[in-house]
This record gives sequence, structure tokens and C-alpha cells, in this order.
Amino acid sequence: MTTLSDIGVAAAINISTALLFFVAFAILRLQPWNDRVYFPKWYLKGLRTDPVHGRALVSKFINLDWRAYLSFLNWMPEALRMPEPELIDHAGLDSVVYLRIYLIGLKIFIPIAFLAWIVLVPVNWTSTGLEGSQIKNITSSNIDKLSVSNVHRGSERFWGHIVMAYAFTFWTCYVLLKEYGKVATMRLGFLAAEKRRPDQFTVLVRNIPPDPDESVSELVEHFFLVNHPDHYLTHQVVYDANKLAKLVEKKKKFKNWLVYYQNKLERTSKRPEIKTGFLGLWGKKVDAIDHHITEIDKLSKEIVEERENVTNDPKAIMPAAFVSFKTRWAAAVCAQTQQTRNPTLWLTEWAPEPRDVYWRNLPIPYVSLTVRRLIIAVTFFFLTFFFMIPIAFVQTLASLDGIQKAAPWLKPLVDIPFIKSFIQGFLPGIVLKLFLIFLPTILMIMSKFEGFGSISSLERRSASRYYLFNFVNIFLGNILTGTAFQQLSSFIHQPADQYPVTIGTAIPLKASFFITYIMVDGWASIAAEVLMLKPLIVYHLKNFFLVKTEKDREEAMDPGSIGFNTGEPRIQLYFLLGLVYAAVTPAVLPFITVFFGLAYLVFRHQIINVYNQEYESGAAFWPDVHFRIVMALIVSQIVLMGLLTTKKAASSTPFLIVLPILTIWFHRYCKGRFESAFVKFPLQVCQFVFCD
Amino acid sequence: MTTLSDIGVAAAINISTALLFFVAFAILRLQPWNDRVYFPKWYLKGLRTDPVHGRALVSKFINLDWRAYLSFLNWMPEALRMPEPELIDHAGLDSVVYLRIYLIGLKIFIPIAFLAWIVLVPVNWTSTGLEGSQIKNITSSNIDKLSVSNVHRGSERFWGHIVMAYAFTFWTCYVLLKEYGKVATMRLGFLAAEKRRPDQFTVLVRNIPPDPDESVSELVEHFFLVNHPDHYLTHQVVYDANKLAKLVEKKKKFKNWLVYYQNKLERTSKRPEIKTGFLGLWGKKVDAIDHHITEIDKLSKEIVEERENVTNDPKAIMPAAFVSFKTRWAAAVCAQTQQTRNPTLWLTEWAPEPRDVYWRNLPIPYVSLTVRRLIIAVTFFFLTFFFMIPIAFVQTLASLDGIQKAAPWLKPLVDIPFIKSFIQGFLPGIVLKLFLIFLPTILMIMSKFEGFGSISSLERRSASRYYLFNFVNIFLGNILTGTAFQQLSSFIHQPADQYPVTIGTAIPLKASFFITYIMVDGWASIAAEVLMLKPLIVYHLKNFFLVKTEKDREEAMDPGSIGFNTGEPRIQLYFLLGLVYAAVTPAVLPFITVFFGLAYLVFRHQIINVYNQEYESGAAFWPDVHFRIVMALIVSQIVLMGLLTTKKAASSTPFLIVLPILTIWFHRYCKGRFESAFVKFPLQVCQFVFCD
Repeated sequence: MTTLSDIGVAAAINISTALLFFVAFAILRLQPWNDRVYFPKWYLKGLRTDPVHGRALVSKFINLDWRAYLSFLNWMPEALRMPEPELIDHAGLDSVVYLRIYLIGLKIFIPIAFLAWIVLVPVNWTSTGLEGSQIKNITSSNIDKLSVSNVHRGSERFWGHIVMAYAFTFWTCYVLLKEYGKVATMRLGFLAAEKRRPDQFTVLVRNIPPDPDESVSELVEHFFLVNHPDHYLTHQVVYDANKLAKLVEKKKKFKNWLVYYQNKLERTSKRPEIKTGFLGLWGKKVDAIDHHITEIDKLSKEIVEERENVTNDPKAIMPAAFVSFKTRWAAAVCAQTQQTRNPTLWLTEWAPEPRDVYWRNLPIPYVSLTVRRLIIAVTFFFLTFFFMIPIAFVQTLASLDGIQKAAPWLKPLVDIPFIKSFIQGFLPGIVLKLFLIFLPTILMIMSKFEGFGSISSLERRSASRYYLFNFVNIFLGNILTGTAFQQLSSFIHQPADQYPVTIGTAIPLKASFFITYIMVDGWASIAAEVLMLKPLIVYHLKNFFLVKTEKDREEAMDPGSIGFNTGEPRIQLYFLLGLVYAAVTPAVLPFITVFFGLAYLVFRHQIINVYNQEYESGAAFWPDVHFRIVMALIVSQIVLMGLLTTKKAASSTPFLIVLPILTIWFHRYCKGRFESAFVKFPLQVCQFVFCD
Repeated sequence: MTTLSDIGVAAAINISTALLFFVAFAILRLQPWNDRVYFPKWYLKGLRTDPVHGRALVSKFINLDWRAYLSFLNWMPEALRMPEPELIDHAGLDSVVYLRIYLIGLKIFIPIAFLAWIVLVPVNWTSTGLEGSQIKNITSSNIDKLSVSNVHRGSERFWGHIVMAYAFTFWTCYVLLKEYGKVATMRLGFLAAEKRRPDQFTVLVRNIPPDPDESVSELVEHFFLVNHPDHYLTHQVVYDANKLAKLVEKKKKFKNWLVYYQNKLERTSKRPEIKTGFLGLWGKKVDAIDHHITEIDKLSKEIVEERENVTNDPKAIMPAAFVSFKTRWAAAVCAQTQQTRNPTLWLTEWAPEPRDVYWRNLPIPYVSLTVRRLIIAVTFFFLTFFFMIPIAFVQTLASLDGIQKAAPWLKPLVDIPFIKSFIQGFLPGIVLKLFLIFLPTILMIMSKFEGFGSISSLERRSASRYYLFNFVNIFLGNILTGTAFQQLSSFIHQPADQYPVTIGTAIPLKASFFITYIMVDGWASIAAEVLMLKPLIVYHLKNFFLVKTEKDREEAMDPGSIGFNTGEPRIQLYFLLGLVYAAVTPAVLPFITVFFGLAYLVFRHQIINVYNQEYESGAAFWPDVHFRIVMALIVSQIVLMGLLTTKKAASSTPFLIVLPILTIWFHRYCKGRFESAFVKFPLQVCQFVFCD
């Protein structure tokens, strides 16, 4: 069992790691040659240019101003300085609302932590429940003395925990309610305040039925002229233009090389020559600039041809179209209503932003969509509960015996002590780690296969899957210690009333483990985020090997994005831990509060300076965030019930049953009250604010 | 254990009871003085007049034509004769689609019964699994020899049952799919083909926010002039006119009396006199006709005044309104879209038919609605699982000891042997029976409290609650023998994988009980339905004591209606039993098939001749019906899995897991494919068919 000093050591290590990252960041970000890594957002907005130009050679690469290094943490207040409305302009509503998730964490957990330390910690600390068990040789740490474990069985003190559980629930719900309303207002205001954008007048129509007599384009026009005669403006069918895209891409590459050779000519005044063969290594020597000009001409012609092809070939036309209306009101009406008798045809929805559209999924027909959904649901179930089976199989293959059996000729190599210990010690761990690194990608591929039409919805779907995976394999997995499959079978073989008891008993014992987890994953990793190690290395590698023109350098920047599909489930894990431990082991709460504060700072800085959002969904993800926090609340209540049952607090436990019922009701209330602001689009807003 | 001959006896009793009812019906319906009881629908439509007029005195009351009695079952082919489109005209779509539920039962169970008897019965019969157990002195009936109980543990014959389970599932789903599509088409066709009705141009607006400056009426007008400027036509606010309604009712009663006295004057040529006191028993004597004329005048004035009051008093105006549009298209658009930023205000939905509106619930605000929903959900849970507690309490009160304790002065009375045996033998049963009789009313009150705005939705809600109650207390209750509360606690204390096993083991043992149940509830009761004993008695009592004028006689008719809230859950119980026993004890199937056939006949007859529908919802209940049959299918699959697990058919059981997954997927597919036809209203239909 972890003692308080163990946790102190872990805290020291993690805090110093985090500080180390911050110092490294402070130094690296001041170097001009890293400027594009740490401030790409500003470059992309055109508000910052290379500091490399027009300085002394040394100061092109290294910042020699020693004063800049003194205040190495001053990016923190800077990150907080930009007011919210300006931040919305700068980075979009998605980013701002994403930051609000961290703020909610602070709003929920700071008061809860205070309350818990004022009320529950004294109650637990002054109890003597653990002294009895110490006689029985069960060592317990000081952390446990702060937790509910220290209270005697059947003690009247549990009333304190129950009252606190009520207080925590009401406070959390209050914060959630306020926040849902605030975000909904922000969303509607954002949508209404935006400048007229074509996609606000446009509706995406999917599943257009095939017609033997008319082309898709004619069919769409006729359909909307008949059904929305006063409002229909125009439409744009969706083409399958993969070949065209490839040609355009190729032309772009050639143009880039052309610029490179022209620059070279300017500098060296010598016409560059290249070989036309593979990778320029052999073949006929030609003048580089002329060669590229002719190639570009050829491609331009091909592109024109291919464009003709695509527009005329009926096979290239997908059964989907973007239909534009004269007014936003009409577009809102069309997006929210059912068009035909058959509700699986002519499906209308608000057009996503052009950059948010996931083109490949637009033409999937309805039946195929439902089949895909079934397949993915089954696959995800197996992935969550049985993912250890293939990994264990690969691990046996990657073990010493496995390698010797599969490839006996490797025996001499394997017998080398260093390689032997590497295989034994690291390989199995690496296999698992690799799987976990690729898991978000796997989930994303699954969502893509499922057929969502926009990148934002793909990310939302992946996020909810990732959350479930984390819940089963990190939260339950660490509490119940066993693979998800073992848990599943033990749950199936257990009476239903034993579930909360099983989890409730294990929860306080795992507090110190989760504290360590929070420090590693929540403190050090977040600090590492600001350092952007991977983009830094990749940028300099690219800069060294690939960058030929100014345009290339721009493309070598990898600002990245928030990554909703991985980031949000990670935050949710902290909500879950915080709420579950609030009434059980309040010692966990300060660690979680620090995580939320630190993460808020770091991500605010990143959003201002680094991340480049890929799309703008207008905070469409908020209902998911809300739902998962409510789920965490319900889990925490059930766990507490189970725990108190084992503590024989029979007189007080039944009072907890009301809580989950109230919480579920609260969720339904919020859903009815706010959700449609994120799904539909009120006509009043169209009419009043847009003034069409 | 019930033997085959026991079932034979029960069948004989029930068949002869049913025949008795049919004979009684055949005799009674031919008597002219019962004409209004057995053909009220035709009277209400004005297509039939009293046969009493213009005949000999005797034949006014008794049909003396002996030939009419010979073919006492000829109402059956008559009931089938009317084709479906005509029946829709005659009785509305609701009734026709309701009949289709019975037809589905036939479509599903006739092929399943054939298949089960051809394949499963031989497989079960030729097994010898029960012979072993007979040695152990467990008697088993011949019914059990037909059931899966007769197959040896671990036998390979279970493959037959699994293949059949697949066949049954696919067949049921196929029928359901076809039927859903058919009903959706019927609904859309019905809505489109109807003559222009004002409610098709009208939207019901609820939760109109209070405004300090404007009245509700002005507010509504301004709101819709701004948000639907091109389409808004007019509106009608909803008044709280309870007092007005009472006055109108009173005036109607007086008018009726006036007619009565005028008739009397005509017949007797003597001006009738009445006393003005209580019930006409004392007080001043006045001329009856004059008195009523003055009273009616007074009331007419009061009504005009009250009408003025209601229209001018802002307190009498409810925050709800019916808004009419110029086109059906605009009404469809308004009903399907969100109006304001706050989705809980200005809630729009299609206006129900005027007679379908449940006025009292229109002004309930949103927050109150969600609170009511919570209260009812909790109440219903307790009602389902703990309803035995108050009943047991009343039963102890109604027992001998209870009465002697509560009212010792009754002791001499209670000591009389007859009363003693009555209290001991009947009273406890009657208490339970009374509760079960009032249960649908209780559920209806609960739905009303929950705040639905139309009678059709109230009935749908009550139906789903009644189904759940039946599922827990009749289906599970009889299988597991114990009160619902005992089951609940045994389920909670049991591992989850034991649920299907517990039910699966009990299922085959209960087959003969359910066969008896089907014969009593499904054969004899259905036959009793056609006899209409209660309306018959009530009509004649009213006719004898209360009827004064021709109008009174019309009102004494009680045609009743289908009673979706009690009828549909009852049918669903048969679907459940049929699907569960299809693979387990095929002997149950013929009994269920007979039920569906008989009920179809009887209810088709009743719908043509008797029932007067209270509203027309356009078969809006179909998604519920579909959902419950799918649920029954899933229950049957899980039960079969549990049963085969106890039979140690380990190699074949896992193949059944696919079935519930496929069935759930099928349900989701149907939901996406068809449900919106029952919720939304496609714009295409508005545009094309209505030709506004």
C-alpha cells in the first residue's frame, strides 16, 4: 500500500518534470528558428512573419537577449489575457467552449474540495475505524486515514457523507445547468453574429433516389422547385472527383518545384538541370525550368479534360447535393423538416462548413448505413472487452519462446543477453503501448466506416467510444484489477446488487494509485503538451531535408488541433475520478483541481498560439460533454451506495437512492431544455438576427 | 401437473361458454328493443332508425321471424364482408389499423404453428428425456412430451430448436417490416386523402411566454407575423371556460326537460306542473313548461355574460393557442421546426383533432411537465412492483380478525356462517379483482397528470404502462410464482447470467397454465365482448328510469370504443406468449392462433356495428405496437437461451446470441425507416397531394 511519503516522492518527481518541460519550453520558444513551431496560429492568420529576415546571422537562430529568459513563466498570464469574445474571433467557438470544459472542472471541484476538506476530512480523520484493522496486520497509509475507510462500520458519521453527496450533486448540477444555458446562448449568438456565409443558406441533401429519366442535378432542381417553390435558389451536386484531386495535387507539386528552380536560377545565375527518370537519379538531362513549365501545361490540360469528364459522366455524380435557398429562414425550414413520404430518402440537414465535410461518406445509402452501424457496434463491443486477446497473442509471439519457435534461425541473436532482456522486459509492454497509441486512430477509422458526413461528427463519435473504452479499461480495469473480459464475466456471474458493492469496496483502496495516475497523466503530460516535442522535431527534420521554397516551409508547420476525439475523453476521466472520490477520499480532489487549472492554462496558450482548428461546428459537442459529466455523477452515487452498504450503514444508505433518480431527471430536463439548440436551428434567430 | 385430459375439459368448458355467448348474442341482437345496443354505430351515422316505429306492438319488442334465428352465426361472414377502404370511411383509420394487429397475429402464428408442428413436435415427441425423470416419480403430462422438456440434456436435437428460432425470428421480422411499411403508406394516404379539415392547417402552440405589455392573443399574432410572415392566417387562443361549459351543460338539460313536458302536454293535453324544490319533491308548484322557458332564458343571458367575461378576463386566457396557416405546407413547416432560441417556449406541434384535444393539459408549463414526468415514473415503478402491499393490507383489514378488531360491534353479524364464509372466501379475492379492474383507470389518471395534450397520446401512454404491468405481474408473475416485489429482490440477488436460466427453466412447466389462461381470457372473454352485457343492462335500465325524450334515448346508447389503452396490451400478451412458446412448447400455438382469429372476427364486427371512435389519430400508435412485438421477440430469444443453457446444449447455445443483436438492429432500422411518418409530416405530401 502506498504511503503518504510515496505520494510525496511521486509528486516531487512529477512537479520537477513539469517544471523541466516549462523551462525547456521557455528557452525553445524564444529561439527564432522555433518560431514557426510555437506560434503557427499567428503565421496562418498572416499576423506574424519570419523573424529570420533582416537580423544578424547568429540572432537568426538563437535569441541572445538575456532578459527574455528571466521570466520563463510569463506565457501563463499572457495566455489568460485575451478576453473570451476576442478569443472567439481568433480561434472560433469550438476552441473557446472546449476551454470551458476545464473551467467547469474548476467551478465544480474547487468548492467541492473546500467543502470536503472542511467537513469530511475531520469526520474521517477523527474516526478510528482503521486502528482495529491494524491489529489484524493490514497496513494502511495516512491517505486512508483521510478517507471513508477510517469510519467505523455502522457509524452514524456516514450521515455526513450522505449530506455531502447531496451537496456535491446539487452543486455539480447547478454548475452544469448554468453552463449548458451559457453555451447554448453562445452558440446561438455565434451562429447569428457570423457574417453571411454560403453554408448558412445551404442544406445538405443525402440519399437522393435514382431516377431513370432525369440526372441527379435535374431531379434535385425539380424536387425543390416543387416543394420549396418560393425559396429555392440553386444547388450543387457532389462529384466523385478523386482523380481530379490527384491531378490538382500533382500540379501543385510541380509548381512548387518550378518556384524552387526559379529561385535557384536567381541565386546562382545558372540554369538548373534535372534527370527525368526515377527520383531524378537517371534518365535524360533536361532544363529543369522548361521541363516543369511544359509538365504544368500538360497537367492543366488534363485537369480541364478531367473536369469535363467528371461533370458529364453520370457515374461520377453522387446521390447527394448542396441546395441553397434565398433566405436563411428557408434553409432552416428545409433542414428541419421531412421532405418525402419515405423518410430515408431526400434526407436534409444543415450543410456542414466546406472544410468540415467528409466527402467520402456523402453517397452512402440508408440501408448500408444501418448495416454499418450494426457491424461497428458489435466490433466496438469486442474491441472494448476482448482487445487483450489479440494483444496477448502477439505478446506470446514476441516472447522468447515464441520467437525461437517461429524463427529458429534467430536463436543466436536472441541469446545475446542485451537483446534477451530487451525482448523479455520491453517487447510485451511495447505491444500494448502501441495498441493504445493507435486506439484513437482505430476508433476514428471505425467512425468513418460508420458513415458520418462531417469531420466534427466523426470526432464526436470517436470521443464517445474512446470514453467508454477508458471507462471500462482504465477506470473499472484499475479498480477491479483484471482485464475487461474477466470483469465482464465476473459481473455476469455476480448478483446485480453486488456490482456497486464490488466497486465500492475497491474504490478507497485505489485512491493512491489514481493520485499517482493524475500526477503522471494530468500534470507531467500536460506540461509536455506545451513543449510540442513531436512537431518540433518533425518541423526541423522537414526544414532540413525537404523545404525548398517559402511555401514548403509554411507547409512544414504542423500546428495540430485540439483533437476533440482524444482530448475530451481524457478530461472526462478526471471528472469521473473527481466525482467518485469526492465523498470517498477527498485527498484526491486537490490533485484534480491542479490538473484542471494547469490544463486550462496550457490549452488556452496552445489555442491562442498554436492550434489551427480544422473545422468550426459551433460547439455542437456540448450535449455529449454534459451527458458524460452527468454519467460520472451517477456512477459516483452508485459507487457510494455500494461502499456504504459494505459499511453496514443500513439506516442511512437508502437515502442515497433518491440521488441517481434526481440526476437522471435533471439530465432529461436539460436535454429537453437546451439540446435542440445544438441540433435544430430556431426560426426566430433566422428571422430577427439575420434580417434576411 | 395438468394432464392432457384436464386441458380437454377446460377447452370443452370454454368452447361451450363461448358458444353460449354467441347463441345469446344471436337471439338478443335480433330483438328490436336491443337494436340500439347492438347497432349504435349505424344510429350515430344516421343510417339506421328505430325499428320500433310502425310495427305491431309485440314485434316492437320481440322478433317473431323464426327464420332469423336459424343462422345464428351469420354475423361472422357479414363482419368480414366490408372491404378495408370502405371500413376506413366507415370507422376511421385507427380502427382499421387496430384490426390489423390481429391480422399480424394470424400472419405470424399460422406459418409458425405449421412449421413448429411439422418440425419441432416430432423432434420432441420421439425423444425420451422425460422417461428418465418419470422413474424419479416426477409425473409429466402429455403436453410436456410435446415440449422441449422431453429432449435429452446435451442432445444434438437442440440444433433443430435453434434453426427454428432463427426461422421464427426472420419470419416475424419479415411480417413486421411489411406491415410497418403498409401502415405507414395507409397513414400518409389517409392524411392526404382527407377532405380539407381546419386542423390540417393548424398548429397547436404551447408554452407561450407571459408578456407584461401584450395579451396572449396580440403576442401570438405578432410572433407569427414576424416569423411566418407569408403564411400566417389567424389564430385562436385557448380559454379556461369551465364555468361557461357548466352553464351550457345546464341549459342543455333544461331544454331536454322542456321537450319532455311539451311532449307530455301533447299526449295528455294537460299542462304539467312541477315543484321547484329539491329533486321536484317539495316547494312551490309551477307550470313546468313556463318555468323551464324562463329558466332557459335566464341561462342564455348568463351564458352571454360569462362568454364576455372569459374573452375579456386575462386570467381566463391560457398560454396556448391554435395558429392557422394559409397552406398545409406552412403548417407542416411550423409544426416541425423550432421557433425560438429557448426550445421550451413556443412549442409547436400538429393540432390534434378538436375532439382529440385534452384541454385541461394545454396550459401546463415545461418545468412542471418534467417534474410531473419524474413523479409519475417513480409512482409507476412502485405501482408495478409494490402494488401487492396496500392490497395485502386491505385484505388483512377485510379478514375476519381485521373486522372484529376494527369494529367489534359487527361481531354478531360476522358470526353468521354465510357471511363468515363470504368474508373468508371472497373478500380478499374481490379486493384484488377490484384493483385490477380499476388499474386502467388509475394508469389513465397517471397519464393525465403527466400532462399529455391529446386523448390519443394519453391512451398510448397508458397502454405502454399497462403492458409493462402485465409483463411483470402476469407473464413473469405467473412464471416465477411470487409477487413482483419478491421477483425483483430475487433478481437483484441473482447473478445476471442466472436470469434467463431462472425463466427458461420455469417456462415449459407453465405451458399448460397459459393454455388455460388463453382459453379463459382469449376465447370466452372475447366471445363475451360481442354480447356487450354491461351496455345492454345499462341501456335498458336507463331506458326504463331516465329516458324522457328521443334525445335521451340517443344518449342512453353507450357504443364504447376500442379502448386502445386496455385492448392493445392484452393482444401484446398473446404475442409474447406465442413467441416465447413457439420454440419451447409448440402445443400453445394453435390456441393462440384461434384467439387471434376469433378476436379479429369479433372486433371487426364490433367496429362495424358498435364502437364509436372518440378520436382519429391516423394510426399514430403503430410504432408502439411494432416496438412491443419486437420486445416480445427478444424476450423469447433470451428465454430460449436460458432454457438451452440448463439443457447443457453448450455447443449450440452460443449461436442464439446473434439473434437478439439482429433483432435490435432490425428495430432500429425500422425506426429510422418508418417512424418519422408517424411523428413528422412530409412536405412532399403537403405539396403534391393537397394541392394547396
